[in-house]
Amino acid sequence: MPRIILDCFGGDNSPLANVEAAALALNAHDDLNLILTGDQNVIFEKLKSFCCDTSRIEIIHAPDVIAADEKPTDVIRLRKDSSLVKAIETLRADDSIAGMVSVGATGSLVAGAVFRIGRLRGVIRPAFCPVMPTMNGGVVGVCDSGANVECTPDYLEQFAVMGSLYMELVCGVSKPRVALLNVGVETEKGDTLRKDTFARLLTTEGINFVGNMESRDLMSGKYDLVVCDGFSGNVLIKSTEGACLEVLKKLKKDINSRFINKLGALLMSKMFKAEKEFMNYENYGGSVLLGAKKVIVKGHGSSKARGIAKCIEQVYLSDAGNYTQNAEAAIEKLPIIKR
Amino acid sequence: MPRIILDCFGGDNSPLANVEAAALALNAHDDLNLILTGDQNVIFEKLKSFCCDTSRIEIIHAPDVIAADEKPTDVIRLRKDSSLVKAIETLRADDSIAGMVSVGATGSLVAGAVFRIGRLRGVIRPAFCPVMPTMNGGVVGVCDSGANVECTPDYLEQFAVMGSLYMELVCGVSKPRVALLNVGVETEKGDTLRKDTFARLLTTEGINFVGNMESRDLMSGKYDLVVCDGFSGNVLIKSTEGACLEVLKKLKKDINSRFINKLGALLMSKMFKAEKEFMNYENYGGSVLLGAKKVIVKGHGSSKARGIAKCIEQVYLSDAGNYTQNAEAAIEKLPIIKR
Repeated sequence: MPRIILDCFGGDNSPLANVEAAALALNAHDDLNLILTGDQNVIFEKLKSFCCDTSRIEIIHAPDVIAADEKPTDVIRLRKDSSLVKAIETLRADDSIAGMVSVGATGSLVAGAVFRIGRLRGVIRPAFCPVMPTMNGGVVGVCDSGANVECTPDYLEQFAVMGSLYMELVCGVSKPRVALLNVGVETEKGDTLRKDTFARLLTTEGINFVGNMESRDLMSGKYDLVVCDGFSGNVLIKSTEGACLEVLKKLKKDINSRFINKLGALLMSKMFKAEKEFMNYENYGGSVLLGAKKVIVKGHGSSKARGIAKCIEQVYLSDAGNYTQNAEAAIEKLPIIKR
Repeated sequence: MPRIILDCFGGDNSPLANVEAAALALNAHDDLNLILTGDQNVIFEKLKSFCCDTSRIEIIHAPDVIAADEKPTDVIRLRKDSSLVKAIETLRADDSIAGMVSVGATGSLVAGAVFRIGRLRGVIRPAFCPVMPTMNGGVVGVCDSGANVECTPDYLEQFAVMGSLYMELVCGVSKPRVALLNVGVETEKGDTLRKDTFARLLTTEGINFVGNMESRDLMSGKYDLVVCDGFSGNVLIKSTEGACLEVLKKLKKDINSRFINKLGALLMSKMFKAEKEFMNYENYGGSVLLGAKKVIVKGHGSSKARGIAKCIEQVYLSDAGNYTQNAEAAIEKLPIIKR
């Protein structure tokens, strides 16, 4: 009976989308229990619109609201009655809870994870690992996608181990092909960080390291996990997402500019719908913060119910695959790092 | 009467595409003179296929061929009779030549530029600055896109100044909006390099610095020049190009999978042709190596004649806009850097 917390008052479409997501998730898994944080009257009210087994819902009242520009550490320290901090504190206090989902402020969530939830034994820095679609119908993970803008080979080695395990246990990829993001595929490419990390990953046990990769091949299906520092990982996923969206937007505009195009698009409406669906991040869930003691998933701020439900699913699957226990064991097997 | 060198024996489609590009460029500009390097018998033979004013062509015989895996510094030192090294040495020896174009090995070209051509006075490191299309029909420059994988704020400030001037004088953008590639648009975002560079660019004279940008906005048309280290710049342009191409490839595959889609696409054939053309890098030329003493343009290895002719056009326009003289003057105005 996994228990998962959902922060109901973060994100552009909260609380309605969050509450709907809770209903979707409960209907998808008979053994799931959800803890919802936020203004309880509002949550009660919204829940009436959806059909689900409310006996598996627990609500923790948190009426306070966080402003967009608040400092993350201040939020964690001062906004004890906000839905996010209540979620974090509840997760911290109760070992029987598997993890939590938030689509609110990333900075505050990371601060809460680091200072209140803590890291798995041996983990230097937790890292975000979103997954993206590949052209052959699979997915590829990117770790780190932005939690750590400055990294060392020690960090990157841990990202490789934690990310590989995540792709295997949660995304169902057997022997994930782990690649290092670089400016070329040749061995000697890149800056000092890449050269040192490349040498390190060659000897890292328990991962299937296949060498350097170029950013253009992210969606090619040739790799299952991309290892990178949070700065270039952030550039990688945002530019890939951005380019896909810009192309779709341009197509839409050009289709609407001429009658003959509209007619053609009408014939292809099923196909275009599928393309849009393919690129819809709601289908791929949020970014898991690997290395935290509990499973913490951050969804896109603009997520709708389906996207948030997918985030809950990620926590559910991580719990089912015993992700945190396995990750801790794998990190402990790495040579001890002096720091 | 600008004189420009074209390395005729580099690139996937050489020498035919290169020689055809020479003919295209000569036909486009009545005052242009070209110097072609490579096996003269082959060049003579290929030239017969195209109609152009051959009196404005000079051929420098260079029969030697460079292997793909040769070390750049070895190429420059040992392959004196290769088309690339002959081009570089000719450019070095003759001040009346404006610049050169190559679609061959990038590493060897950069090594030749640095060790044989040299930098403009005050320039710490030359940097590549390709331009990419934006959704509103304009272009955006990215500097550096890969020449320097490790950078300091001093480098990035110079990239901003050289790149801004290039966008203005060569690409015809007035008051180019210069942005710093970062993980978010807020002032305090990023690693030490970004924070220090942000503070620096605020005080840099002669550029229109508009702040941080996210990689997803590269093609949005909101910016004219993106300043970045060569590592993240490389990730940025390759992932954007890669995603655009993958989307087009997927569309093509999906269109061919069903008759109704094929029919729709037939109606939209003009539109799809325009989309393909929009994303065809051949229309945007190569990467200029800003900060070198002469104008040096590196085209895509897979360039066809039109793409290479566009690279020649870039040297032509740089010469017409007195780019190198202006860039040297702008760099000299920057506070002197201790190094």
